[in-house]
Amino acid sequence: MSEAVSRRRAIALAGAGVAGIAGVAAIGGAAIRSAADEEPTTADSAIGAVPFTGEHQAGIITPAQDRLHFVAFDVITKDRDRLVSMLKEWTAAAARMTAGKDAGPIGAVNGIAEAPPDDTGEALDLPPAGLTITVGFGPTLFRDANGKDRFGLAGKLPAALAPLPKFTGDTLEDAISGGDIGVQACANDPQVAVHAIRNLARIGMGVVSVRWSQLGFGRTSSTSKAQVTPRNLFGFKDGTRNLKAEEPELLRQHVWVQPADGPAWMAGGSYLVTRKVRMLVETWDRSPLAEQEMIIGRKKGSGAPAGRSDEFDEVDFDSVGADGEPLLAKTSHVRLAHPDSNKGARLLRRGYNFVDGSDGLGRLNAGLFFMAYQRDPRTAFVPVQRSLAANDEMNEYVRHVSSGLFACPPGVSGPDDFWGRALFA
Amino acid sequence: MSEAVSRRRAIALAGAGVAGIAGVAAIGGAAIRSAADEEPTTADSAIGAVPFTGEHQAGIITPAQDRLHFVAFDVITKDRDRLVSMLKEWTAAAARMTAGKDAGPIGAVNGIAEAPPDDTGEALDLPPAGLTITVGFGPTLFRDANGKDRFGLAGKLPAALAPLPKFTGDTLEDAISGGDIGVQACANDPQVAVHAIRNLARIGMGVVSVRWSQLGFGRTSSTSKAQVTPRNLFGFKDGTRNLKAEEPELLRQHVWVQPADGPAWMAGGSYLVTRKVRMLVETWDRSPLAEQEMIIGRKKGSGAPAGRSDEFDEVDFDSVGADGEPLLAKTSHVRLAHPDSNKGARLLRRGYNFVDGSDGLGRLNAGLFFMAYQRDPRTAFVPVQRSLAANDEMNEYVRHVSSGLFACPPGVSGPDDFWGRALFA
Repeated sequence: MSEAVSRRRAIALAGAGVAGIAGVAAIGGAAIRSAADEEPTTADSAIGAVPFTGEHQAGIITPAQDRLHFVAFDVITKDRDRLVSMLKEWTAAAARMTAGKDAGPIGAVNGIAEAPPDDTGEALDLPPAGLTITVGFGPTLFRDANGKDRFGLAGKLPAALAPLPKFTGDTLEDAISGGDIGVQACANDPQVAVHAIRNLARIGMGVVSVRWSQLGFGRTSSTSKAQVTPRNLFGFKDGTRNLKAEEPELLRQHVWVQPADGPAWMAGGSYLVTRKVRMLVETWDRSPLAEQEMIIGRKKGSGAPAGRSDEFDEVDFDSVGADGEPLLAKTSHVRLAHPDSNKGARLLRRGYNFVDGSDGLGRLNAGLFFMAYQRDPRTAFVPVQRSLAANDEMNEYVRHVSSGLFACPPGVSGPDDFWGRALFA
Repeated sequence: MSEAVSRRRAIALAGAGVAGIAGVAAIGGAAIRSAADEEPTTADSAIGAVPFTGEHQAGIITPAQDRLHFVAFDVITKDRDRLVSMLKEWTAAAARMTAGKDAGPIGAVNGIAEAPPDDTGEALDLPPAGLTITVGFGPTLFRDANGKDRFGLAGKLPAALAPLPKFTGDTLEDAISGGDIGVQACANDPQVAVHAIRNLARIGMGVVSVRWSQLGFGRTSSTSKAQVTPRNLFGFKDGTRNLKAEEPELLRQHVWVQPADGPAWMAGGSYLVTRKVRMLVETWDRSPLAEQEMIIGRKKGSGAPAGRSDEFDEVDFDSVGADGEPLLAKTSHVRLAHPDSNKGARLLRRGYNFVDGSDGLGRLNAGLFFMAYQRDPRTAFVPVQRSLAANDEMNEYVRHVSSGLFACPPGVSGPDDFWGRALFA
């Protein structure tokens, strides 16, 4: 199957398979393509392709896709050249897959019969589905646990990539934390996201090994004003005041690493913090509505902040009720996480709901896979989480079980560029 | 939020959130609704509601939805009346949720502030999304491990619910196998499926406890001729010759328990076998294309059976190649699983792809959550799996890690009926 043909055929086939989803989109007023249209290439169509190259990596301010597969790799080679080669191969494969093509130039089914295919095949017939693949480098890629410079990169370790402190109440599991390289694949079809991660793992065989991976079934953040605020597994709207793609000045200020920040290889990049937050939903579900709303600081139905009437109303810190207490409780999540409570700190959140089977204690293993991009975690995630960990009443219902920190370099500029080129230069 | 209002508002809101999915559906030629339309209620729309009542439970021959949340519960009460009460509550909640309503009559946000809501809220704003909830009873509900009749049901234990034999190569984990009650929630939005299971668990608190649960992100079976055959994580089309909703005579013969089969409470029901099949995809991905195709017995691209040209061509058992060997290898999955190799045995498959993080050994924990409905496992799943377990070359790449068996009663007839009424009568 040639590349060009595969995609047109793919979209025609995919149509029948997921035809029923039509209604949702139509009601939303999205642009509708006819079968005679060319392959979609705009980012605003959930089946189309998101451009891979650019000043910044895609998948950060790209309107949050519906599904996630995140993976953290350990680098298992000591050979810097092999690592660089893999990053070049990965970049080329990501450029292909985000365009809706097979991971390799031969493809899943067109190779010689005696060789393994250079694509695994499960995304044949599927459209690009808005796939983005975003890469970051963990602190352990620069120095190992003994402080040893593994690949001659220690001099380029960003100060902002300082290991996160231990927060009050942390119950982190080492096996699902950290990692030398993190890869976020987001798409509107989970099979497309899984296919992307799997093929990077396949390409990286012998160089990297899967340390942990996480599927997210539903986005919990909007990263564009065109998106409706979704709900997390507490049943509340989440991320109402998230940073949005339409706010370039705020993004410059809070998300993108500026040239003066250093190191040079990170200019235009961003730092990603991941936290797997187990939610004790069974306990939450037994708590009264008023208590839930007090803990969050918003109305469950409308999402309006306490004392206000609309989701997007400004937070009211000061009004007090008949009991003399603030309408927005002092220990509410909204108050504690608000920029005004954190010296203006803001994050671009990009989390996903997860359910990973059961916990062996008769409960669903469910929660939020929190991801947030920022210019410097030391002045963003760290102070906010320190405040939340110490004071948030929500802590009774959540457990942080995994933590990750990754320096995501800027976008690749074209076919000759690759993820980390400036880092390894 | 009133029920009627919540759904209309819901759909309008949901539209913007997933607007991008529009293209897929439009290309597929699905009917498009305008915002002025009434709430959709037809099963052929992925956002609409599937009727809950009927001769058979929905979710068996319903065109397979895209996403799955399956749960197996242990019954932790000894009180038969409490169990029956819960089944009545579950049935009422399922009728509501499959219609796109909150799980309880008060709802997530309209109760009194001092009481826990009777819905968890994460599906507020979401359409019905084709949700089906299908219930089955496991052998251990009738007799415990010591043979004790737990709820006075032992006399009604169907012979067809005999425990599955151990198959060659089985590596089953007890903690994620079995269960007293199994519930399959399928929907085209995973948040809707998760919401359904979570609310049943919430309602069942003190009566049942989550034994294991499984998310499936992508269907691997078509159960309607209107659906495109999807691909499993081996990259192959799966379920080409599955039983289909459009084949009532075959369904009568192979899926629905007939009155003469006994016991009476199962007439119109079906037996569900679940198998979590871990796929060693990293090993598979290193095997040559020709070997993959020989093991499956189909072309990877087209899905055509060996020696044929089209996916839906009849399987050719007899033609031999230049080497004198059958084109369809004797150990191929297609040959071994074919009805002609199994005294005509056929199953209605309804499987889903899964990825559950990593396996701790540097690999993705990925595979197929196999589900199949049948009139009698003793003459369907058991002989087919026995043959596959002994001879299928695919066994080098798969591990069965979980197994479940559930007697799914017929559908409920209306508001006064409930799941298992005839069983507990």
